[in-house]
Amino acid sequence: MTAYRELRQRFDRHYLLRSSADQLDWDAQAMMPEGSGDLRGAQLGTLRVLAHEAIAGEDMEELLASAEASPPSDEWERDNLVAMRRSWVHAAAVPADLVEARSRATSSCELAWRTARKNDDFASLLPKLTEVVNLTRQVGQAKGSRMKLSVYDALADEYEPGAREASLQPLFARLERELPPLVDAILAAQARAGEAPELVGPFKVERQAALGRHLAERMGFDFTRGRLDVSVHPFCGGAAEDVRMTTRYDEADFLSSVLGVIHESGHALYEMGLPRAWTRQPVGAVPGMGLHESQSLLMEMQASRTPEFLGYLAGAAAQYLDVSPSMLHLDALSRHALRVERSFIRVEADEATYPLHIIVRFNIERALLSGDLAVKDLPSAFRDAMERIVGVRPETDRDGCLQDVHWPTGAFGYFPSYTIGAIAASQLFAAAVAARPSILSELSRGDFTGLRTYAHDNVHQHGGRFDTNTILERATGRGLDPDALLRHLRRRYLNDTAGS
Amino acid sequence: MTAYRELRQRFDRHYLLRSSADQLDWDAQAMMPEGSGDLRGAQLGTLRVLAHEAIAGEDMEELLASAEASPPSDEWERDNLVAMRRSWVHAAAVPADLVEARSRATSSCELAWRTARKNDDFASLLPKLTEVVNLTRQVGQAKGSRMKLSVYDALADEYEPGAREASLQPLFARLERELPPLVDAILAAQARAGEAPELVGPFKVERQAALGRHLAERMGFDFTRGRLDVSVHPFCGGAAEDVRMTTRYDEADFLSSVLGVIHESGHALYEMGLPRAWTRQPVGAVPGMGLHESQSLLMEMQASRTPEFLGYLAGAAAQYLDVSPSMLHLDALSRHALRVERSFIRVEADEATYPLHIIVRFNIERALLSGDLAVKDLPSAFRDAMERIVGVRPETDRDGCLQDVHWPTGAFGYFPSYTIGAIAASQLFAAAVAARPSILSELSRGDFTGLRTYAHDNVHQHGGRFDTNTILERATGRGLDPDALLRHLRRRYLNDTAGS
Repeated sequence: MTAYRELRQRFDRHYLLRSSADQLDWDAQAMMPEGSGDLRGAQLGTLRVLAHEAIAGEDMEELLASAEASPPSDEWERDNLVAMRRSWVHAAAVPADLVEARSRATSSCELAWRTARKNDDFASLLPKLTEVVNLTRQVGQAKGSRMKLSVYDALADEYEPGAREASLQPLFARLERELPPLVDAILAAQARAGEAPELVGPFKVERQAALGRHLAERMGFDFTRGRLDVSVHPFCGGAAEDVRMTTRYDEADFLSSVLGVIHESGHALYEMGLPRAWTRQPVGAVPGMGLHESQSLLMEMQASRTPEFLGYLAGAAAQYLDVSPSMLHLDALSRHALRVERSFIRVEADEATYPLHIIVRFNIERALLSGDLAVKDLPSAFRDAMERIVGVRPETDRDGCLQDVHWPTGAFGYFPSYTIGAIAASQLFAAAVAARPSILSELSRGDFTGLRTYAHDNVHQHGGRFDTNTILERATGRGLDPDALLRHLRRRYLNDTAGS
Repeated sequence: MTAYRELRQRFDRHYLLRSSADQLDWDAQAMMPEGSGDLRGAQLGTLRVLAHEAIAGEDMEELLASAEASPPSDEWERDNLVAMRRSWVHAAAVPADLVEARSRATSSCELAWRTARKNDDFASLLPKLTEVVNLTRQVGQAKGSRMKLSVYDALADEYEPGAREASLQPLFARLERELPPLVDAILAAQARAGEAPELVGPFKVERQAALGRHLAERMGFDFTRGRLDVSVHPFCGGAAEDVRMTTRYDEADFLSSVLGVIHESGHALYEMGLPRAWTRQPVGAVPGMGLHESQSLLMEMQASRTPEFLGYLAGAAAQYLDVSPSMLHLDALSRHALRVERSFIRVEADEATYPLHIIVRFNIERALLSGDLAVKDLPSAFRDAMERIVGVRPETDRDGCLQDVHWPTGAFGYFPSYTIGAIAASQLFAAAVAARPSILSELSRGDFTGLRTYAHDNVHQHGGRFDTNTILERATGRGLDPDALLRHLRRRYLNDTAGS
């Protein structure tokens, strides 16, 4: 067997073990009875270690070198070999005992975080979070020395290949400069318009579920290769061949579940649109979380908040939720869907203030890793940064540094992906509409065909061959460009079409 | 680390991998979208091979010998070591290439069987089934030579430890002699009583589900450590720490779903009642399928078909299904629940004719393995045996040798477990009622406490320490005794209390 074929087998095995774990993780969040957590934790630990071992053997470096010395002739196979090396570097750069120590520390810290958040008790989290920061720094150092990258870049690269502090910093500096006045202007315009009429529920859960399913189907979600269920924290999991997405329902508020389903369906369409022949190999996987997020935001923020789609949604919602169409008047629905507010909680933030939440985290996580910020000083640093950058000062840590699961689970360097995704979504939607002007009229009929086809042709079908910048360059002629997001916001919220 | 501790770690890992696979198998049957079968098959294959490898390493024999040379002082640990050897013999006696070849052959044969059954087309199955028979024979030979057992005994021992053709043969001979006249007498009595009034539906699925859940709760099923869902073929899966049972619903017939839930809850109570400290070790597992089946039949056939429980069920069903109590009159319900009939399909058979279906299979599977019966002659041999032993001749193979999944999946030697379970259930129920006469009056209130406690004390809490015969001897003073089943049938169906 050639070295490359041997590698393919190992990555195949890696995929089967990882996707098994992902499936059990979906079950834990959507199906598992509350008393079975111990067993599930042990199962997931075993599977994740085996998945890691499948591509971290001592002979991997030799196999990769040997395969690279006589690379396969097929273009996809060659790109697969590149993606293999990338996966291997992230998997194998870290010594096994550090992998294990960090895995134990993050599991324990996540549990402690749940309690700490509930009780608004940062002090109880401090020792465990300190350990996670230390171990994550060590992981960053180990990866960095192998990849010739700084600690932060080495960590961020796992989530978004090619993400580098040096290019993120000017990008975020620009958003930090331009977004606050833009938000002020939006808030002033909102104030002039007065309060939007209430969308008065209750909206029955089973009717919301039927509406969500209808919209997912309209978007092209293939229910023969996926499911939609309920979990506390909505997500899109499973595997490309079996996508499990979840949402949650609030009888008082159908918009959040509906837009949540559209968001997760955006992720799901990406997974379902990956090249089937390559699903189980690195080159067949989504290359990074920024690009993944771009696909959910393309659907949720870009397409579904257009006046065209909101018009369709007003009608569909009235029908599915069995309420009077007058109650779901387009104007009321739009003002709720497009409401902007300086607020505490990132996951509830609108698209205009959201990047400011990310900047807070981008600054703080780098300071934590470098040691410039001591973990014990995180609460006050977080409040100060929120006040300075978002413009509101949280009164509690629950509304502050305890709100997100990322740091307790060691996911330092992940946050920029959200804003990379938002920017990429702005670029892709503008390019899609320019290339296929019928997309907007299609959306007014709840028809996503044109947009989905554009996304498939320009993003999904490439699998993991290109990074975000390359995908954007090929599709739009430009790499990641914060201008696109700013232009989009000015146009949508201020009717300012300058530059577009 | 001592050899015994090393073994414990390996069996722990084996359990975590096996239970992960079982969980994914439950998902495949209860949740998975139809288009994801390829991925799931590959995931299950990988996990089952890894589970096998965890306890089949080349050094296992040495480790076992070394642990046995200085056995642990604790009684449970010592019994665990015995159970480990047993698991290892079944896992490791078969060469890896034979394990893999058989696994591939049975997967492929099971798929072919589904189509063959649907189309009543045995010819299409013949080549694959022939291969499965040949490979299974080789597995039996490999195990048999290690265990000093015949091919059939070596295979049957995997499902029911200690099951031997030499003791099953006289047992089945007795049932084959005594059951047919007993069935004739029951049928004559049934004819004299005339037709039972119909239980006229439709009975709404969600109401049947609520009734099933109510009954499972009354039985003591712990919904914080398990779930009840729907699948085409009802089963009890998952793991002792997270029991996933399923049922199916027919709007025209609520009795089959209700009794199905009670059956699976019997299995589930056994799993949930296993000693928690030992769940992940061999000594903490159910020792064999005969004993497992005894626990489902103890609940479904023994307890739930007593006049006492049927009285409770009539009331609960009227309430949950929202139908007139007069329609669910005890007499009508009883006659449906206790209907006896010579019929084609084993899984639909009543308790009086069921062992006859098993005898058909016990005879034929031995003949297939020995080569006395060629696989191509299976259809006619099956029809002949059905006619001779059950008393009805199937017109089709779908109603004949294609009805069961066991042989296509290589499960030769499994069928006797069903009748071992039925006999054991008769013995255990009689002993339980003798020991705790209040059980019957409790059942008339839908209260399973006494029976569950008896089952827990005499069966569940022992985990895998004793085989079926030992469990029965300790609980009832006798090993497996077909008299108990015959006595039970005469008493229930003919009001004949002689010998009891």
